[in-house]
Amino acid sequence: MELLEERIRKDGVVKEGNVLKVDNFLNHQMDIELFREMAQQWKEDFSDCSINKILTIEASGIAIAAIVGAVFGVPVLFAKKSKSLNIDGSVYCAKVESFTHKNVSDVIVSKKYIGPEDHVLIIDDFMANGKAVKGLIEICEMAGATVEGVGIAVEKGFQGGGDALRERGIRVDSLAIVESMDAETGEITFRA
Amino acid sequence: MELLEERIRKDGVVKEGNVLKVDNFLNHQMDIELFREMAQQWKEDFSDCSINKILTIEASGIAIAAIVGAVFGVPVLFAKKSKSLNIDGSVYCAKVESFTHKNVSDVIVSKKYIGPEDHVLIIDDFMANGKAVKGLIEICEMAGATVEGVGIAVEKGFQGGGDALRERGIRVDSLAIVESMDAETGEITFRA
Repeated sequence: MELLEERIRKDGVVKEGNVLKVDNFLNHQMDIELFREMAQQWKEDFSDCSINKILTIEASGIAIAAIVGAVFGVPVLFAKKSKSLNIDGSVYCAKVESFTHKNVSDVIVSKKYIGPEDHVLIIDDFMANGKAVKGLIEICEMAGATVEGVGIAVEKGFQGGGDALRERGIRVDSLAIVESMDAETGEITFRA
Repeated sequence: MELLEERIRKDGVVKEGNVLKVDNFLNHQMDIELFREMAQQWKEDFSDCSINKILTIEASGIAIAAIVGAVFGVPVLFAKKSKSLNIDGSVYCAKVESFTHKNVSDVIVSKKYIGPEDHVLIIDDFMANGKAVKGLIEICEMAGATVEGVGIAVEKGFQGGGDALRERGIRVDSLAIVESMDAETGEITFRA
């Protein structure tokens, strides 16, 4: 998506250790108008699917997912990291390792809110090794829900998470795929 | 707000320990259409203010804040709990005790994204003792930003957090204020 790639070129900052900071518009301060354009793109790309639920994971996927829910006109469900005192015992749970935080979390979704009747679009802001999305797919599988696809804002293509999912036959629709980036020059190359 | 009170009566579950579960529509599965109605209400209520930024705190405030950002046409900023490896050192930080999780978190906002030019509407899904919002107000004060008001979906009035802020002269606009609730009967009484 041209608009998102331009924005990453303009406001993204490449840091050592394969870190791409986009907290100016994507995952700290958030440009909701841009999110609406992204949601419209996914709406078009998945127009052949009857999506009835958006699933994401806390925290930085939630805002994008909310706008996607608004554009699709369907409810949004977010998986919670670690067990909250306010969640019932009856949850689906997957283990997810975070690239950013270098730790493993339990990721949970209440069994009440996902089931075989659901056709799910998974949304997240970032994909590196793809472990968060893999955890969400596991939860959908446990629930008997259909994963119609995965919408990612920024995929770090060189880390392989997205391509591994595509090889499994999962439809991964990343709006910008970073093929390489250089912390010294700040240069970012996108997949054509 | 009649619509929200009705929904709480219909789908809210009162539990022992002053817990009101609204994860069916507010903070796990999320009814985005309801959020849009809530955002419209705040837009009307704060029509005398020139709000140019929405501030919330992860995680469950983010979706509501995103929809409020869409309705107001302004960017949304969410405060992060604990220090992420991807955040610069230059942040405003406040300590917040969670009623739900019974712990204290550092809550941080990058100095780049809030300043004296900002007229902020703080948004959150829930207010109990008001400590999360107090932390966000502290951050606005550190940044020299103006807090135009606070929009809360569900305030637990009997826990006093909202009224304490109102006594300080802060404009707190809670769309539903629970005055009392009974875990045995499930009865919920709202402030008139």
